[in-house]
Amino acid sequence: MRTKVAIIGAGPAGLLLGQLLHGYGIDSVILERQSPDYVLGRIRAGLLEEGTVALLDQVGAGARAHAEGLVHEGIELAFSGRRHRIDMKAATGKTVMIYGQTEVTLDLMNARKAAGLTTVYEARDVQPHDFDGSHPRVTWVKDGVTHKIDCDFIAGCDGSHGISRASVPPSAIEEFERIYPFGWLGILSETPPVSHELIYSNHARGFALCTMRSMKRSRYYVQCSLDDHVDQWPDDRFWDELKRRLDQKAADSLVTGPSIEKSIAPLRSFVAEPMRFGKMFLCGDAAHIVPPTGAKGLNLAASDAHYLSAALREFYDEKSSAGIDAYSAKALARVWKAVRFSWWMTSMLHKFPDTGTIGARIQLAELDYVTQSQAAMTSLSENYVGLPF
Amino acid sequence: MRTKVAIIGAGPAGLLLGQLLHGYGIDSVILERQSPDYVLGRIRAGLLEEGTVALLDQVGAGARAHAEGLVHEGIELAFSGRRHRIDMKAATGKTVMIYGQTEVTLDLMNARKAAGLTTVYEARDVQPHDFDGSHPRVTWVKDGVTHKIDCDFIAGCDGSHGISRASVPPSAIEEFERIYPFGWLGILSETPPVSHELIYSNHARGFALCTMRSMKRSRYYVQCSLDDHVDQWPDDRFWDELKRRLDQKAADSLVTGPSIEKSIAPLRSFVAEPMRFGKMFLCGDAAHIVPPTGAKGLNLAASDAHYLSAALREFYDEKSSAGIDAYSAKALARVWKAVRFSWWMTSMLHKFPDTGTIGARIQLAELDYVTQSQAAMTSLSENYVGLPF
Repeated sequence: MRTKVAIIGAGPAGLLLGQLLHGYGIDSVILERQSPDYVLGRIRAGLLEEGTVALLDQVGAGARAHAEGLVHEGIELAFSGRRHRIDMKAATGKTVMIYGQTEVTLDLMNARKAAGLTTVYEARDVQPHDFDGSHPRVTWVKDGVTHKIDCDFIAGCDGSHGISRASVPPSAIEEFERIYPFGWLGILSETPPVSHELIYSNHARGFALCTMRSMKRSRYYVQCSLDDHVDQWPDDRFWDELKRRLDQKAADSLVTGPSIEKSIAPLRSFVAEPMRFGKMFLCGDAAHIVPPTGAKGLNLAASDAHYLSAALREFYDEKSSAGIDAYSAKALARVWKAVRFSWWMTSMLHKFPDTGTIGARIQLAELDYVTQSQAAMTSLSENYVGLPF
Repeated sequence: MRTKVAIIGAGPAGLLLGQLLHGYGIDSVILERQSPDYVLGRIRAGLLEEGTVALLDQVGAGARAHAEGLVHEGIELAFSGRRHRIDMKAATGKTVMIYGQTEVTLDLMNARKAAGLTTVYEARDVQPHDFDGSHPRVTWVKDGVTHKIDCDFIAGCDGSHGISRASVPPSAIEEFERIYPFGWLGILSETPPVSHELIYSNHARGFALCTMRSMKRSRYYVQCSLDDHVDQWPDDRFWDELKRRLDQKAADSLVTGPSIEKSIAPLRSFVAEPMRFGKMFLCGDAAHIVPPTGAKGLNLAASDAHYLSAALREFYDEKSSAGIDAYSAKALARVWKAVRFSWWMTSMLHKFPDTGTIGARIQLAELDYVTQSQAAMTSLSENYVGLPF
């Protein structure tokens, strides 16, 4: 077997990259450890920047997002018992779209299928080889048989715990990490969202977020301890805690119901540099993780896929290595800005155990300022809707 | 003796308050522990917001500032070997003025003298009494004799370690504090400034700041350890360290010379709430301290004096307590925003021992963003030139 680009991982980063390459006439094969159903069963983010939607459109996979996605023109910041709206559309001319990562993945899977492109699911023991040499290839095991694909390039789109980054010698990579001293307890419920826009709440009891997947399905989060377990949080306790962290009006109008998913996620910031190792490129979570507060994870995967596909197109069409040589620096410049923004949103909105009472008051001063200053609202908004590629 | 307002402290807060009250026809007496020469010998900040200059003008003490002060329309942020200018005038329409606090104090002293107003210098054991009762007064000792002044109100303008705040029962006051894990080593030298505007440098070796008092007198700072002593820093070592933390062009053009003042100052953020206790009001450093990175300390003292003088004018002219009842909340709203800004500037520009390599990279991402985004530049600028009163 041979292909131009062997893509490891069939999450949104790998699938989008594959479709973008296909659009440029560059063939690829995707190798995915899990089954399609497993991939689609992972509950993930659900907020798309306009740039991400444009990439879905570019590969012909945007129709359902436009039909079913919810376009939001602003968010609300809640603190000191009141909500303050940030009008992102007014500040930047741009909007964001609520559309689940699972749906994006499904749309991209279907586009890949329709184009007749190869994805090998349930490929075990995937391993990239010789990406620093002249004979890059990927091997895997399926049904007890070892397979191999020769390629020009390898794209590591297999997430933070994938084999791609793990295959790089430690001396060739620098890793940056911050672990936050709390987690997010999230539930999904078949209830109408409490508000038609997202509410980010800074509260003395901890952060809360009201978001949604549709006008019938809500997603809510409360900041929790890293020591907490889901079984300590029956639905009633969750709803009670969420209400306490919202303003009275929101608490009163919150529609509760049984959770259909409940989980606790830790928060961390992580960046690996560089994002290129000879003929292997990292893309998306394989290279960087952001806390979900800024809704940037999926959108960074999309911008990485954009930069990488453009670089590879330049390589094949124009016989120029300039694009692939610049990929890592270009992607990382945008990544670090999103890491900065996600850290800032996280820092402003959560209760921290170690910053004392002055830390909490500086947060309120910052929220006060951010919701009163046009410049600060614009700054928040331009990051939230996504900095330009 | 009797006066309407007994002011404790003849620093810029007390002197400006006295002149503002005088302009409103409200008499005051200032009690100061030190001699005039001692007060004038304290080297302090030297950057005035337009609002502060307007207050000097309002009391007729602005002429020399306008003649000798240097008007700056921007600052430079240096990082990764390059300097990036923030054009504050373009972003906000406003400028700042370089004019030493010592000069402000002298101008206000002269204005007070010209108006024939009473200042008692070298008043020992100053003590406010009964500010929560019906007979507020201040006592002090001079030349071995105890003196007393009866008053309607007491203004505590005596700095962070003064007697005013210390006289409030701990149960009536809430204090917020953050100590930063480093200090500023500063020198004053009779040399032309390296640049006509301020340079704030984020460097792997630590923060540096190039500022000035005039076109012939420079003020430079380098971040140092809290364990450092001035005698460990002979001039040569200081100049060498400063050059290392600047870009090549600045380092090459730096004119060095003997220091005429050298000192190490710790950095802290501190706020005491409220700022009113019955008939006593706190004003300036007596209520709050900010790290000098944002150049806000003197300007907050000025805005406090403005709010307090306006409140007292309302009390005497309109027989209304509304202004004095609102003073604390009004002053604190602006104070907390400046505390937030000063903390943010400090956090973005200094080397922190405990935030790891990712902390340093987030700083660079923030500096990259701040120097590229018009919204972020405007946000920095509007705080730097001073939020409106």
